[in-house]
Amino acid sequence: MGALDAGNAGIQGRVEALEREVQDLRRQLEAQRVPDRVSLICFSGDWDRLFAALTIASGALAMGQEVHLFFTFWAVTALRKEGGEASPDKALSQSMLGSMLPVGPRGARLSKMHFFGLGKVMMKRLMKKHGVEDIDALMKEVRELGGQFHLCETSSGLFGLGPGELVDGESLDRCGVATFLSLAFRSRLVLFV
Amino acid sequence: MGALDAGNAGIQGRVEALEREVQDLRRQLEAQRVPDRVSLICFSGDWDRLFAALTIASGALAMGQEVHLFFTFWAVTALRKEGGEASPDKALSQSMLGSMLPVGPRGARLSKMHFFGLGKVMMKRLMKKHGVEDIDALMKEVRELGGQFHLCETSSGLFGLGPGELVDGESLDRCGVATFLSLAFRSRLVLFV
Amino acid sequence: MGALDAGNAGIQGRVEALEREVQDLRRQLEAQRVPDRVSLICFSGDWDRLFAALTIASGALAMGQEVHLFFTFWAVTALRKEGGEASPDKALSQSMLGSMLPVGPRGARLSKMHFFGLGKVMMKRLMKKHGVEDIDALMKEVRELGGQFHLCETSSGLFGLGPGELVDGESLDRCGVATFLSLAFRSRLVLFV
Repeated sequence: MGALDAGNAGIQGRVEALEREVQDLRRQLEAQRVPDRVSLICFSGDWDRLFAALTIASGALAMGQEVHLFFTFWAVTALRKEGGEASPDKALSQSMLGSMLPVGPRGARLSKMHFFGLGKVMMKRLMKKHGVEDIDALMKEVRELGGQFHLCETSSGLFGLGPGELVDGESLDRCGVATFLSLAFRSRLVLFV
Repeated sequence: MGALDAGNAGIQGRVEALEREVQDLRRQLEAQRVPDRVSLICFSGDWDRLFAALTIASGALAMGQEVHLFFTFWAVTALRKEGGEASPDKALSQSMLGSMLPVGPRGARLSKMHFFGLGKVMMKRLMKKHGVEDIDALMKEVRELGGQFHLCETSSGLFGLGPGELVDGESLDRCGVATFLSLAFRSRLVLFV
Repeated sequence: MGALDAGNAGIQGRVEALEREVQDLRRQLEAQRVPDRVSLICFSGDWDRLFAALTIASGALAMGQEVHLFFTFWAVTALRKEGGEASPDKALSQSMLGSMLPVGPRGARLSKMHFFGLGKVMMKRLMKKHGVEDIDALMKEVRELGGQFHLCETSSGLFGLGPGELVDGESLDRCGVATFLSLAFRSRLVLFV
């Protein structure tokens, strides 16, 4: 009976160790699980690349993913509001840059075949005919479906874009590379567009 | 003996619970395992970017990966067949666009230093000298090694590309963003080129 | 007592099986764990895209990630040393190409709004004003923080770039697509810039 007790005690210890191990494995597995999240870096301000990013964003949202769009460098122009008010403390070079850069998604240009705007006119006509949404409607849709827009702090600083010039100026999240990377590391899909 | 039985029964219950837990963990681990798959979005129709995408595809295939290439926007021109027949119900703007866009991988242009074609001639000469495959040979190789080509439905609709104008026109998979995303979410590597 | 022994033996066998299973699960979980690594493909030689890649690299290094940068195609120009010595056995087309391509990060051009260099001058002035590092300082920083630079073998062969023309010419790792893919498959984040 002493031997049996000892045997039972031994088994009990091993079962307890296993229970701890299984709990630990479950915790680790949970930590490795990537959330249903898509993060897109919109770098280019070209109409066609913005269109691609927004189409992917809209598709991912329809599939139940959490979607983040980081607007950086040229793409920040897509967040400029038509008729927005520039901040008065802008540097001359920022004002010059600002007047040359496109305003909003409708101002974006095709990366190829621009032909002084003809390429885009043709593209938009074809899109309408084929029931494909234009880029400004697509952007609105992505926002309405819950797509989260982030503005690169450095880029908005460089281009001197104040809240008065931006879509959702007050509520728009301005963030740096660390915030973006934290989200990107925990995403199913990250693309640089 | 009653105490021993009870002890045994208790242990037995815990062992059974552990067995169920371990099975569940194994199932979850299996679900989290990403298959050996690479998905490339070919967006650009530029010769150099197509070359990069095809080189990565060929390398991944050689390493035993399943490879998917999604041709969208300008890159759909790489799937145009030389001497292909346009469908007669094309819109005028599609015909215009079609006549201006390159045909097949050999028609693709360098994104930089095009110099009216001189850049590409120089590049091709250097490639030949260094035993680097040209883009059309590379594309053929990727297909022969089992790379799966997908054509973006929306883009082919916009450009009005019928089966008669496309490489593998009949068998080529036409798919939307949802199909692409389903594959991308379960890929080791996804790049937007 | 025989029954008790048999019961104990049965439990013991199941506990042993569980212990083996748990060990196996732990091994698999370990194998699926993606290391803290970021791999960036620098394809473009444009100043703005190099700036984006280096900013992401620098941010990732600050967050404790291992960072790899693969310089391929046009981006190899960013690794050219100012005042570097060309190898004497260069083909004519390589020399021509070499004289037309930018040298080092400071030679890189803006992809948009180049305006014969004016765009970049404006950009650099704004960067200085906003305390944003210039691209050559950023590259130095990434190297000092431990970012690992790799040069695409094929590209350096095509452009005919010898060690004498390259930054860190002797120690710079030259690798092919297989090496890159092996690292990329085991990275938290891979971007094609």
